[in-house]
Amino acid sequence: MERFDCAIIGSGPAGLSAAINLHQRGKTACVLGAAPGFLSKAEQVDNYLGLPGVTGSGMIDQFLSHAKEMGIVPLEGRAANILPAGDYFMINFNGEIMESKTVILACGIARAKPIPGEAELLGRGVSYCATCDGMLYRGKKILVWGLSPEAAHEANFLASIGCSVTFVAAKQPPELKEEIRFIPGTVKAVGGEPVVKWAQIGAVQEEFEGVFILRSAIAPDTLLPGLALENGSIVVNRSMETNIPGVYAAGDVTGAPLQVAKAVSEGLIAALSVADYLDRK
Amino acid sequence: MERFDCAIIGSGPAGLSAAINLHQRGKTACVLGAAPGFLSKAEQVDNYLGLPGVTGSGMIDQFLSHAKEMGIVPLEGRAANILPAGDYFMINFNGEIMESKTVILACGIARAKPIPGEAELLGRGVSYCATCDGMLYRGKKILVWGLSPEAAHEANFLASIGCSVTFVAAKQPPELKEEIRFIPGTVKAVGGEPVVKWAQIGAVQEEFEGVFILRSAIAPDTLLPGLALENGSIVVNRSMETNIPGVYAAGDVTGAPLQVAKAVSEGLIAALSVADYLDRK
Repeated sequence: MERFDCAIIGSGPAGLSAAINLHQRGKTACVLGAAPGFLSKAEQVDNYLGLPGVTGSGMIDQFLSHAKEMGIVPLEGRAANILPAGDYFMINFNGEIMESKTVILACGIARAKPIPGEAELLGRGVSYCATCDGMLYRGKKILVWGLSPEAAHEANFLASIGCSVTFVAAKQPPELKEEIRFIPGTVKAVGGEPVVKWAQIGAVQEEFEGVFILRSAIAPDTLLPGLALENGSIVVNRSMETNIPGVYAAGDVTGAPLQVAKAVSEGLIAALSVADYLDRK
Repeated sequence: MERFDCAIIGSGPAGLSAAINLHQRGKTACVLGAAPGFLSKAEQVDNYLGLPGVTGSGMIDQFLSHAKEMGIVPLEGRAANILPAGDYFMINFNGEIMESKTVILACGIARAKPIPGEAELLGRGVSYCATCDGMLYRGKKILVWGLSPEAAHEANFLASIGCSVTFVAAKQPPELKEEIRFIPGTVKAVGGEPVVKWAQIGAVQEEFEGVFILRSAIAPDTLLPGLALENGSIVVNRSMETNIPGVYAAGDVTGAPLQVAKAVSEGLIAALSVADYLDRK
């Protein structure tokens, strides 16, 4: 298996800036994850010097095309967790394991607050990753809360391996399989002791044995336990080092201001720090 | 006299990024100083996300045109010094005084080391500003060391007010007046006690009563005495505040990495900090 010099989690401005700068330093990198939903919805961005009056999605296109000119193409999907393994890291990406000597976390801001019961029952019936944990729920009645664009695909996968799936989202995705029960709405809470026994959809409580909460972004310390946070943001120094050696962070994930120019700069600096770290080893 | 919300010293990536972001926050700003010579000489810049494969001068053109779309046009010339004046600052720009509530120092890196005698005799015969100090040297024999593109104009000005000017530079600028004596070369040292009495041009020592050293960039603590530096870079916190209230810094002037993306981000952050500072007052 190829072991990359760096795995970049996130393909927004911070992740792509890190990727082009690692490329320029002759380092191999994989960019994991889709472009951010947040920026793509911006009607106009005027304050990134050099690209006046672009839409958010136009800006993403220009960033992706810059990266593509250097042979960098982000892989779509989701990093579910990262395991330190001595002098490298194992990354569970779409259920497959990838290996990398260093990691740059550029996964954007986790805008959602956890719902009641979520943090307490994580790993005891609450899961963020269908491909990782799906097999544990074969033949069981589970709830999938679809908050990310790929959620319907993950629900289809769970149905295909024999889970009895109820899918909750604001509106029904066209790609959702017909046999999947759909409920429009929001999951308000999850409960049970010692494992998940029920979830509350809107005002209605119903029994489930598993609840998959599929957000676009995962809280960074869920992705990589032990990561130091402050007010929900990853703590970094001016070199973009986190508290875990070999792990760097860049962009919105390190806190305010949530701005493209800051993300691009932090991606650059994280890449330079990764290159230095690898060269010193 | 108009008192600007912010005076931005320098019109490179950091200065222009600060300017467009102050504009977006509804603050008035003046941008003082020419674009940096350093970036304009870069053959190709590939690592500023969104603008692949541009020349340094092409990049500057795009940055200036972005600023111009917002009505921001840098004023050419040189800020010689900045004086704190209670709750505002006075800036000596081309010999005229401008007023501003805050200052962002984005004047790039001072690449030159001072020559022997320069720091000791500054203000005692050594000057960085023809328009500020020229009248003190009427009728006297002075040396102008031309290291910036505007130096010949300043030498012409000094000749026009009655100084007896010798101009030293690598090569003779076409705009230099005919009556000015030109010597190709470099100034190696300046000396005298208690005021300037001589300068050494190449291997030759000659008597002068004043020495104007006209570099593109001035060391930031010469511009604004009392500014805290570390290894020649301005000390800033993550909000780009310096040790002087109301004074911020951004770009190469705050130290490595000397990169466009970092400069643009720091200009943005300095602008946001200035806007907060003004709104709190």
